[in-house]
Amino acid sequence: MTASPGGGAQPERSHTDPLTLASRSPQRRAILEQLGIPFVAVAPRVEESRGGAPRTLVCENALRKARAVDAARVLGVDTAVTLDGRVFGKPHDQAEARGFLAALSGRTHEVWSGIALVEGPAERVEASVTSVTFRRLTESDLDAYLATEEWRERAGGYAIQGRGAALVERIEGDYLNVVGLPVAELVRMAPDLFGG
Amino acid sequence: MTASPGGGAQPERSHTDPLTLASRSPQRRAILEQLGIPFVAVAPRVEESRGGAPRTLVCENALRKARAVDAARVLGVDTAVTLDGRVFGKPHDQAEARGFLAALSGRTHEVWSGIALVEGPAERVEASVTSVTFRRLTESDLDAYLATEEWRERAGGYAIQGRGAALVERIEGDYLNVVGLPVAELVRMAPDLFGG
Repeated sequence: MTASPGGGAQPERSHTDPLTLASRSPQRRAILEQLGIPFVAVAPRVEESRGGAPRTLVCENALRKARAVDAARVLGVDTAVTLDGRVFGKPHDQAEARGFLAALSGRTHEVWSGIALVEGPAERVEASVTSVTFRRLTESDLDAYLATEEWRERAGGYAIQGRGAALVERIEGDYLNVVGLPVAELVRMAPDLFGG
Repeated sequence: MTASPGGGAQPERSHTDPLTLASRSPQRRAILEQLGIPFVAVAPRVEESRGGAPRTLVCENALRKARAVDAARVLGVDTAVTLDGRVFGKPHDQAEARGFLAALSGRTHEVWSGIALVEGPAERVEASVTSVTFRRLTESDLDAYLATEEWRERAGGYAIQGRGAALVERIEGDYLNVVGLPVAELVRMAPDLFGG
């Protein structure tokens, strides 16, 4: 993560290069703010892959996002919610959101993230997975939650950092991975961001 | 949780009674706000118990706090951090906070909460426990985290909802229990608060 060994045309990278977050997600920005990490956010223009196993998919998309932004140190993240081999994206409308939540009710699903750090020619990508168990939701629970409008723009149709917390019985793994950024992986990839 | 069956001197309780949080904790207030639950907060004047097993201790203290506030529907919560039978309270100074964090480094500790709901003569209390695994912390990690001052007023000396998130490898259980309020238990005790 220091200078490139050849000393050629590639400019030197140093830990003082600011972090660029290749994302338009307010949740990811909020997490970096919570952690006190200085960054700038740039929305990547990228065609996302849709096929493959969750781990492969989120790693590929995280890399595509990070590569799509031209900066010295770029962080790309992609998240997918899966249950029984089905990938739950962002619901298109309230009816689809209700279907997602009903499918997740009383079950344990997985939230996968790919996280890519691209510093010039140096690219790293890792995956993180957290298990999330929903309580059994009644029709009344679904009505109340859908009325919050939180399902919009959220993979799986819920926001664990909002009122969606009341849908969750327990988790196993990295909580912030479910919110949108696998912080434990980020610490391993870039300990200098955390004073380590 | 509706009217008392005798119809006697006890005033009727209804779900429209506002919730009173017997706590001065800003984290507990923030969680109820996140969940969209209307409440008022009142600091309880209570002598806390210090002995006994974690489950017993946090349930007793949660009840004491809830009983100490005179209102129709009172929520009391108490939290303890434990490892190897040792209870970690709030550190008195930075040196003690460093000792706590060094003891938790690379290990899995437990965060216990007692949660008590007192509605006139009706009292319920439940316990919740979440396992939290810290990554191995270097001296430099400790220095950086202690400099944030987050250890103040936090059982165990860290704030998972703040920069302390970067100390955590994974959790098992209810995340908000670690922040300060076992929400999954609250849903079971008072589903009406969540539209259920």
